[in-house]
Amino acid sequence: MTQRVNIGLIGLGTVGSGVFRLLEQNGALISLRSGLDVRVRSICDLRADSLKNLPSGVIRTSNWKDVTGDGGIDIVVELIGGIEPAKSIIREALLSGKHVVTANKKLLAEEGRVLFDIAAEKGRFLGFEASVGGGIPCILSLTRGLVGNGIHSFSGILNGTTNYILSKMEESGLSFETALRDAQEKGFAEADPTFDIEGFDAAHKTALFSMLAYNRQIDYKAISVEGITKISALDIGFASEMGYVIKLLGISKLVGGEIDIRVHPAMIHHTHPLASVRNEFNAISIVGDMTGPVTLHGKGAGGAPTASAVVSDIVQIASGEGTRVVTASGATRYLPPGRRRSRYYMRIHTRDVPGILSKISGSLGDHGISIASVIQKEAVTEFVPLLFMTHEAVEEGMLEAVNEINGFDFVEGEVTLIRVEDPDKPGEKDGR
Amino acid sequence: MTQRVNIGLIGLGTVGSGVFRLLEQNGALISLRSGLDVRVRSICDLRADSLKNLPSGVIRTSNWKDVTGDGGIDIVVELIGGIEPAKSIIREALLSGKHVVTANKKLLAEEGRVLFDIAAEKGRFLGFEASVGGGIPCILSLTRGLVGNGIHSFSGILNGTTNYILSKMEESGLSFETALRDAQEKGFAEADPTFDIEGFDAAHKTALFSMLAYNRQIDYKAISVEGITKISALDIGFASEMGYVIKLLGISKLVGGEIDIRVHPAMIHHTHPLASVRNEFNAISIVGDMTGPVTLHGKGAGGAPTASAVVSDIVQIASGEGTRVVTASGATRYLPPGRRRSRYYMRIHTRDVPGILSKISGSLGDHGISIASVIQKEAVTEFVPLLFMTHEAVEEGMLEAVNEINGFDFVEGEVTLIRVEDPDKPGEKDGR
Repeated sequence: MTQRVNIGLIGLGTVGSGVFRLLEQNGALISLRSGLDVRVRSICDLRADSLKNLPSGVIRTSNWKDVTGDGGIDIVVELIGGIEPAKSIIREALLSGKHVVTANKKLLAEEGRVLFDIAAEKGRFLGFEASVGGGIPCILSLTRGLVGNGIHSFSGILNGTTNYILSKMEESGLSFETALRDAQEKGFAEADPTFDIEGFDAAHKTALFSMLAYNRQIDYKAISVEGITKISALDIGFASEMGYVIKLLGISKLVGGEIDIRVHPAMIHHTHPLASVRNEFNAISIVGDMTGPVTLHGKGAGGAPTASAVVSDIVQIASGEGTRVVTASGATRYLPPGRRRSRYYMRIHTRDVPGILSKISGSLGDHGISIASVIQKEAVTEFVPLLFMTHEAVEEGMLEAVNEINGFDFVEGEVTLIRVEDPDKPGEKDGR
Repeated sequence: MTQRVNIGLIGLGTVGSGVFRLLEQNGALISLRSGLDVRVRSICDLRADSLKNLPSGVIRTSNWKDVTGDGGIDIVVELIGGIEPAKSIIREALLSGKHVVTANKKLLAEEGRVLFDIAAEKGRFLGFEASVGGGIPCILSLTRGLVGNGIHSFSGILNGTTNYILSKMEESGLSFETALRDAQEKGFAEADPTFDIEGFDAAHKTALFSMLAYNRQIDYKAISVEGITKISALDIGFASEMGYVIKLLGISKLVGGEIDIRVHPAMIHHTHPLASVRNEFNAISIVGDMTGPVTLHGKGAGGAPTASAVVSDIVQIASGEGTRVVTASGATRYLPPGRRRSRYYMRIHTRDVPGILSKISGSLGDHGISIASVIQKEAVTEFVPLLFMTHEAVEEGMLEAVNEINGFDFVEGEVTLIRVEDPDKPGEKDGR
């Protein structure tokens, strides 16, 4: 009764080993649930050491063409990451009629289009659940669970490294640098953390999820990306006093037919489900026109959680139920950054002289920005921290006002500006 | 290129109307995504009024046999609820070769087995995503997303009425009765709220979700069910001081091959994602052996969210991708209630005389219960509230100790006992 499925696993690192172990441990359960007997037929890895302790029935190779060219393989699982040779592997596998499962968000976000096209032409599946949100079944929930919804927007905490760092800064009042070092020691940040802390990893995931949410091609380069290196313990503390937490969010909204897509640190209210996402966990809040906000929360990385997502793709594809990427024809239009709307938190350090509040609020008013609240903190040095929370404002006006305020001679340093987001707020309805 | 799918909708209440509106509003989007042209071919409702304003192309009837007997219908959507005639409708529809989608948790939890058997025999799908967690794609996430996971446990806030009442009691210090009246006025509770506040609705959902999580038949009558009518604003306040919130949880754990399944109010730590679930929202936290905890959060009821789940089932079934209920053969074993383990919160009102603490802690010690913390509050009347938090204890011993303490002459009224749960704590591995 069970149907045999032969896997070729390329890359036996943390996730690849996780897939292998998962199939060994839970193979019987998967077979009961799906009627599939999923077997690893061959494993390709450049490190001969990794291949030493495999069961004797598994073919070992360090040449990926032995896998893509093997007619006995149904699904190729690409887990080496990066652009090349991953791109060639996936192309070859699809062209030879195999399905592919990958966790490679960089490749798919930056150069995925050609691969999705080949998959469609050849009638093969290219599964990538593992590329967004690790063990959280977020692509499945979006494309199947919310299939009847127009998607207004989503907001995600999609990078565990930055969320770990921000959590530590919040809990222990650490500086960014100290929290980063802690993350590196605990294995939650790479030796070169640039890719994570500058927001590029979150941007890749935001691009892929947007493509599926809005059924449009997404140009990765159209995303405004800002990392967390400028976030200070001071602002995290002030945010907390006001009832907010600071998170690195991947945000994508459909606004009057245009996509507003960006990655940046943002304040969210402490009562929102995304605010309780701690340490290396990820979460994504999707606002459907029927469901309202749906939030999914879980481990965004790690061998076993990511393997769970890879195996979910394998089982679905082998059952003929993989996710097909469908995008509408026509160019995708993006909301120009200057026309974005949000609330803003602004911290200004000023000399303690009369008339300051009047000048700053005058400048904000001149640019159409309305103030929701102001707090003047006790001076810690010769400078007084002034905290502003604005009502919703247009980004262009806000940046012009900040530019003007930065020029005032009583302002010390630069104004700190952090967007304040309400992930549940419905975007505008897709005009399509 | 699009494939026509004909729906017969039985029951045009809140959810039925929601399905109709969803298909009208988002039909083009669904077609783009799935290649399906989903049409409502006929609608059955006893109230002729409901049928007045339908488009002329739709067949109207008040006799459900006109729907189940119509050879032009692919999928029957049963949304009338209750046992009969819903059971006959689903049986007839399956026997005549149609697929069925339903939101009827009571029917499926109490008498679903025969219907799942007919569906399997006839090779038809019986979809019920809408029966658990409203618009949250929780059945999909469990059965597809976590298909590679042994499930250790899950804990769910599965009833919006009780969560609304508990939220109001927490936020505004309302009594249970006042919060219930508020819920009734706002439409979040029925005129007769018994079914919700006594935990039966949550128990139905817990039964269905357990069947899918552990791939075993679940006897609804094996669930211990306790509602929220005894929860007082006092305990909610004390819980809050200790860093906990009180929620009505549907809990199901796999412990040494036995299923520990129950619905009752429980304290959970305020940092857990389930603690931030407010008002009428639902959420479910599933602990997979690979993913660790995955939490899904969204609207658990209402026309549009539930319609979203119904349409998700329709699209999957029409694509040949419905969920098949697979249960292992053999009797399901349940953990006897007395062998359950958890931490406990205990509130005792005592007279202010010497030696009390020694007697109570002695009684706890005699029954093998270890105390994690004790707080003696200021006396408000002639009685002093004593709050105990225990370490993990076995339920049998705990109940014996409480029985003994209730007999002490210095104790006023009865001891209040609330379980303290950590939904992330892995259960024991399934021995299977």
